[in-house]
Amino acid sequence: MNEFDFIRRYLQRQPSDSDVVLGIGDDAAIVRPQPGYDLCFSSDMLLKGRHFFADVAPEDLAWKVLAVNLSDMAAMGARPRWVLLSAALPELDEAWLAHFCDSLFALAAQHGVALIGGDTTRGDLVFNVTIIGELPQGQGLRRDAAQVGDDIWVSGRVGLAAAALNSRLKNCVLPPEAAPECEAALLRPIPRVALGRALLPVARAAQDISDGLAQDIGHILKASGVGAELWADSLPTLPALKQHLGRAQWLAYTLAGGDDYELVFTAAPEHREAVSVAAEAAGTQVTRVGRINGSGGLQIVDAAHQDITLTSLGFDHFG
Amino acid sequence: MNEFDFIRRYLQRQPSDSDVVLGIGDDAAIVRPQPGYDLCFSSDMLLKGRHFFADVAPEDLAWKVLAVNLSDMAAMGARPRWVLLSAALPELDEAWLAHFCDSLFALAAQHGVALIGGDTTRGDLVFNVTIIGELPQGQGLRRDAAQVGDDIWVSGRVGLAAAALNSRLKNCVLPPEAAPECEAALLRPIPRVALGRALLPVARAAQDISDGLAQDIGHILKASGVGAELWADSLPTLPALKQHLGRAQWLAYTLAGGDDYELVFTAAPEHREAVSVAAEAAGTQVTRVGRINGSGGLQIVDAAHQDITLTSLGFDHFG
Repeated sequence: MNEFDFIRRYLQRQPSDSDVVLGIGDDAAIVRPQPGYDLCFSSDMLLKGRHFFADVAPEDLAWKVLAVNLSDMAAMGARPRWVLLSAALPELDEAWLAHFCDSLFALAAQHGVALIGGDTTRGDLVFNVTIIGELPQGQGLRRDAAQVGDDIWVSGRVGLAAAALNSRLKNCVLPPEAAPECEAALLRPIPRVALGRALLPVARAAQDISDGLAQDIGHILKASGVGAELWADSLPTLPALKQHLGRAQWLAYTLAGGDDYELVFTAAPEHREAVSVAAEAAGTQVTRVGRINGSGGLQIVDAAHQDITLTSLGFDHFG
Repeated sequence: MNEFDFIRRYLQRQPSDSDVVLGIGDDAAIVRPQPGYDLCFSSDMLLKGRHFFADVAPEDLAWKVLAVNLSDMAAMGARPRWVLLSAALPELDEAWLAHFCDSLFALAAQHGVALIGGDTTRGDLVFNVTIIGELPQGQGLRRDAAQVGDDIWVSGRVGLAAAALNSRLKNCVLPPEAAPECEAALLRPIPRVALGRALLPVARAAQDISDGLAQDIGHILKASGVGAELWADSLPTLPALKQHLGRAQWLAYTLAGGDDYELVFTAAPEHREAVSVAAEAAGTQVTRVGRINGSGGLQIVDAAHQDITLTSLGFDHFG
């Protein structure tokens, strides 16, 4: 099997997408944008040993490669439409590829996303996905839209993926009752696409939590020229995890762990009811965890309103 | 300097592009498609040791990373508009990055292309570019559009990059008078964007020559369900190279070498004049090198119309 057979056999599944004029197999794919919509674009590169373990199951790897990109669309409130996948693979192992592709296409189908192109080459497991989504013209959950007085919300639960990662790195031991959910959060993050779209008319600023909640909120604050107060003990967690881990460890994983792929977003207080309705419609829990203020910085406080100082504010790829 | 400083400092140059609603720095970029246009998309991944030498100059590397993607747009007849660049870098070497970015932005500016997003991470020099181009709705130089009787044309000259690569690998010695042009072809291929756009109303099928002329023509033949006769001795070359290399070596580099990033395209014989006019307008030489027929296969013949058999039909990334 050579590169072209591989493309034909595993990737050239015709998308049932009438906006795709020309799919995989030419120098480029052609799509027809719908009138009245903007398009949004994001790319993520994942490398073995940095973004995933060498022994990761192909099903889990494929899921994550696509999920982290879907998460970017969720953070814009966009409807994901198309992806291009580049892959450097050490060899063409048919069984491995079949598992990878089945998982990839299953997640893509869940979100109505068509694979329209990409590249394959030989190399040591590198993946890059570019995702393209649709937004009603002029809309979009941008980082620079937070306003003083906004509530800060977080979807799902945070810190679980970091706990699972640190358990694998022997930095902590997970309580048995929390292990499966933490592992799932690390291996199969759920992109909050439905929530992002439901929030589009309701929320102001949003972003997904990939590098650590505190750091990712910081991007919103900086882009919007505002500050915030974040209530650490209000952060949605697994109770078993919070009870079991030391306080410092729990705070580190929750505030600076990253890899959560939950949404952090702001909305005006008068939209609390609308946020709840959107969350319910999307089937996703949301929790109010702080407030935007004019301080220009991020203050993290505990239940007694005492300052919490983090030694590290999240993951820096070159840190 | 951390990842975010890097992005701000080197990549966050605001494109002067009124169709970019939101550029680098959010979860995704937003662009506004123009009514009446389709969009086309292509991705290429380049790895150290496979697509470029470890000691390549950053200026040349940046050029090639972008040029090979521009070439895909050229092969569709599209106007390139936007790119997303993902890069895995072993370290943040400011001088290296400055050279890389200056070269990248210079080539982008030449083609009116704006960088709207991407990703940076730590790793051993991997690049992925996704490029987005515009096509008037319903148009595009597809691989499946060749028709029996069409002329086959090639732009520029072929085999030069392969000669330079093989010289580096000590498989051949370049004649001194040909060495600079061969080196330039390998390091700084010229994407035939103007030619591709000029050919849009004139040519039928097209593709760029990345994996070797014979193999790449093969893709057109297969997609179009046709065959072809290719005149090896009509192929545009450097005369000094053809004279100097052995016949088998010259044929191998020219027909199966790859990395040319020239266009191979077909057009009806009644459009010969129009093809010449388009080529002149684009400032690019084109040469008629064969004819599409109904044979279903590719026959390569010499000046005496004797069959030439290639042992390898071009580069297979997994061969």
